[in-house]
Amino acid sequence: MQRIAIIDIGSNSARLVISHIYKNGAYNMVYNQKEALRLSQKLDKTGRLTEEAFASTLETMKSFAYMCRLYNADKTIAVATAAIRSAPNGPELTRLVEAETGITLHIITGNTEAYISYLGVINTLPVKDGIIFDLGGGSTELILFKNRQIVESVSLPFGAVNTTDMFNTRGTMSPNVYSDMSFFLLSRLSQHPWLKQNRLPLIGVGGTARTLGKMQQKRSKYPSSKIHNYKFSAQAFHDIFSQLRSTTLEQRRKIAGLSSERADIILAGAGIINCLLETTGCKQMIISGCGLREGLFFDYYSKSENMPLIAPDILDRSTQNILTLYTPDTTHSKHITELALTMFDAWKDLHKLDKDYRKLLKTAALLHDIGITINFYSHARHSAYMIQNAQIFGLSHREQLITSAIAGWHNGISKNYFRDRNYKELLNENHWQAINKLSLLLALAESLDYSQTNQIRGIQPRIEKKHAVLTLHAEGIPSIEMHQIKQHIRWFAKVFGVELSVQLG
Amino acid sequence: MQRIAIIDIGSNSARLVISHIYKNGAYNMVYNQKEALRLSQKLDKTGRLTEEAFASTLETMKSFAYMCRLYNADKTIAVATAAIRSAPNGPELTRLVEAETGITLHIITGNTEAYISYLGVINTLPVKDGIIFDLGGGSTELILFKNRQIVESVSLPFGAVNTTDMFNTRGTMSPNVYSDMSFFLLSRLSQHPWLKQNRLPLIGVGGTARTLGKMQQKRSKYPSSKIHNYKFSAQAFHDIFSQLRSTTLEQRRKIAGLSSERADIILAGAGIINCLLETTGCKQMIISGCGLREGLFFDYYSKSENMPLIAPDILDRSTQNILTLYTPDTTHSKHITELALTMFDAWKDLHKLDKDYRKLLKTAALLHDIGITINFYSHARHSAYMIQNAQIFGLSHREQLITSAIAGWHNGISKNYFRDRNYKELLNENHWQAINKLSLLLALAESLDYSQTNQIRGIQPRIEKKHAVLTLHAEGIPSIEMHQIKQHIRWFAKVFGVELSVQLG
Repeated sequence: MQRIAIIDIGSNSARLVISHIYKNGAYNMVYNQKEALRLSQKLDKTGRLTEEAFASTLETMKSFAYMCRLYNADKTIAVATAAIRSAPNGPELTRLVEAETGITLHIITGNTEAYISYLGVINTLPVKDGIIFDLGGGSTELILFKNRQIVESVSLPFGAVNTTDMFNTRGTMSPNVYSDMSFFLLSRLSQHPWLKQNRLPLIGVGGTARTLGKMQQKRSKYPSSKIHNYKFSAQAFHDIFSQLRSTTLEQRRKIAGLSSERADIILAGAGIINCLLETTGCKQMIISGCGLREGLFFDYYSKSENMPLIAPDILDRSTQNILTLYTPDTTHSKHITELALTMFDAWKDLHKLDKDYRKLLKTAALLHDIGITINFYSHARHSAYMIQNAQIFGLSHREQLITSAIAGWHNGISKNYFRDRNYKELLNENHWQAINKLSLLLALAESLDYSQTNQIRGIQPRIEKKHAVLTLHAEGIPSIEMHQIKQHIRWFAKVFGVELSVQLG
Repeated sequence: MQRIAIIDIGSNSARLVISHIYKNGAYNMVYNQKEALRLSQKLDKTGRLTEEAFASTLETMKSFAYMCRLYNADKTIAVATAAIRSAPNGPELTRLVEAETGITLHIITGNTEAYISYLGVINTLPVKDGIIFDLGGGSTELILFKNRQIVESVSLPFGAVNTTDMFNTRGTMSPNVYSDMSFFLLSRLSQHPWLKQNRLPLIGVGGTARTLGKMQQKRSKYPSSKIHNYKFSAQAFHDIFSQLRSTTLEQRRKIAGLSSERADIILAGAGIINCLLETTGCKQMIISGCGLREGLFFDYYSKSENMPLIAPDILDRSTQNILTLYTPDTTHSKHITELALTMFDAWKDLHKLDKDYRKLLKTAALLHDIGITINFYSHARHSAYMIQNAQIFGLSHREQLITSAIAGWHNGISKNYFRDRNYKELLNENHWQAINKLSLLLALAESLDYSQTNQIRGIQPRIEKKHAVLTLHAEGIPSIEMHQIKQHIRWFAKVFGVELSVQLG
């Protein structure tokens, strides 16, 4: 096992993330610590980091170094961004950090920061084309990507903290100040004409973007608190922003979704996003919970595990990761998945579902047993909970919920179980019908390897005039499997309106 | 790691359970398979096991042996009970099984069966005194225990399957047959005068007891499907039984909670329980999901891990087990627990909660981080889910729910989160107030080791005239911890009605 520590000394906050990479290649995060450093505010008039900046960075780095030792980190990757990058005495600080903690704090360029943020996004969000903004305390990185490849990028030296200070918007923001700030920002952004991309989504990375996503979730009573891959319209953002602009600091401290330690810098932060929306013309915002730190992780991980830097299929990679994390032997899960997909493909005329649903069935089938980690009893329900709450990349929130429901339902969890959980808004009757069909296919597949003996070597599902036929090719007589699959024949007739006959081939 | 397979060839069904025992001593179940063998029905007129009995047992044992190989079982413990024990050709069958599968199937005596069942119950149910009945297909073991020690036991040669056949109650049970059966059973039971224990609970092990518990859960709309340690009154049982006695087999197949494969033998099974209630005079039933198989496991486990055969404190043992299963390093959790309990003990006059709540706080504190297994993000919520769903022994259902809520709430999960989940009936306003208080203590404790550096060496909580004082003894200045704990001062004032002042000692 490798234990990887990633440290990111930003201009607003500092973070330490520790992840494990197991021998089988699976990884997970085991620790995450955030410190509100606010380095962008600890500069003197000449832009040099103050003594306070040195002292607080050193204290934070010592505490991070302590945690790295506590967690037995084998490898520590530490980067510093805008605040330290822009300060003439930044290198002095990193030398001091190295001398005192033994950790090399790399000052990365704006371009590198943009590229690594892009790596964090592209490996975790299912989006082919878009504009990423990584809005930090002291800089904003902008990246245009098409077909998942980076096309343009730039790092601009304004972020939520230094823009707050520049326009003095900690408390309130008068119309005059707002218009000054917009003029300043828009003129900087207009120097990058490739930003005009009104048909692409604007993808937000960093605390300001996440906070605005959370505020929109509270306002719209969104039935989940998942922030990664949360989508909302530019219009919704404008509504929030115009509301924010009329508030005082005290009022903002009470807004749901807005943490009180961010209440002072949110006006400038949201102001930057507002100008980005105006410049790009984007109509949709997507929040990415992953950025620089995840980019650094994937950069290390892909080299260490000899995998492509940009995962060709992020759903596939993260499903494999979760499967491997929780399942010592994946043979059974993979066999079930093959059987379920064979039925899906052959019975298209029965279920009439498109290939997006195929991907959900595949994910549900691969992960249908991970709940054994929590308790063998009722493990289908626990698998559903874990699928809904694990870090699966490559699915929309609704798709993740459907996948979770397929895994739970195939073993008898009712619609009511999910309905109780306030997901009503995400799933309509069509979704439930699809879940019912796919749960049935998964249940049939599981019946076919009930004894986990791989006795069924192949299946041939087909449709005849008035019924569906499933021919099994087996080693010997698979009596347990034949018995099990017959339990589902009534369900099949109910769902698809035709009889299912099972025969040995 | 050791992989232990336990096989139980009963008179109604056969089971294989595979568990892992890890190097650190933690264990969990990874596989569980049930086959409906019905050996008690495969006897000829002279009571010998028929050819069919031989063939089906062999087939089952071969499939179990296959699974044992698939799961790399290091140790297989296999026992046979009433059906094989009572048949003159039972030893012939076990010889054949050994020859064909390599597995030694031990025929255990009724007394041994009673003792091992008792081990399964006593290590998993928080009951000091009671009467256990383990009602199988071909026998019923009765055990009286006091102060957790076995006092009397007997194995009677009637179970749900052979009693069904004896009185021919597969379909219906007429009043005459019912009275014949009762006469037969009561006269057998009356030979054991120690069964008269009207102040003790009657603890039910086996499929019949579990089924009746499930039926009562459905009838009463019980807000959980946990069956182990489910309690209901003798009166509720009588209501179910009198309803059952007027049904046909077809009608019973549709009853919620009653599986269709048990619908034929439930009349006789419930008839035996009815006579047990009459004989003992017990007023309360408790269902134990654990019995013979768990007894066999604990017997092996205690020897292998050099632990007492009867856990002195089952909650303690199972909490340690779960903690060790999911947490590589338990130092932090144990430190937090100590801090939380020190506050609980010193601030009794503030919280006014009894020592039962102390045990819940201890469990919640030990397990508050296990949710990291699912996802680091929102891990308090996942810890709550896992505490609610893991196999924790020694708590009532309500206590388990309260423990789960303490762990979730200390990190900001609201009452509504749990209320949505249909637990309204289990928790009243007093419980919620207790949860609020204990969550606060856990949150304070966690603040005190926020940096996980064990910097706080000791604490002295006390109450002065108009406020609570918390003195911290630390190595150096614990600035992060001081900052963190101050976040909770308002919550403290709201919950306890007094100010909290924190000082360094």
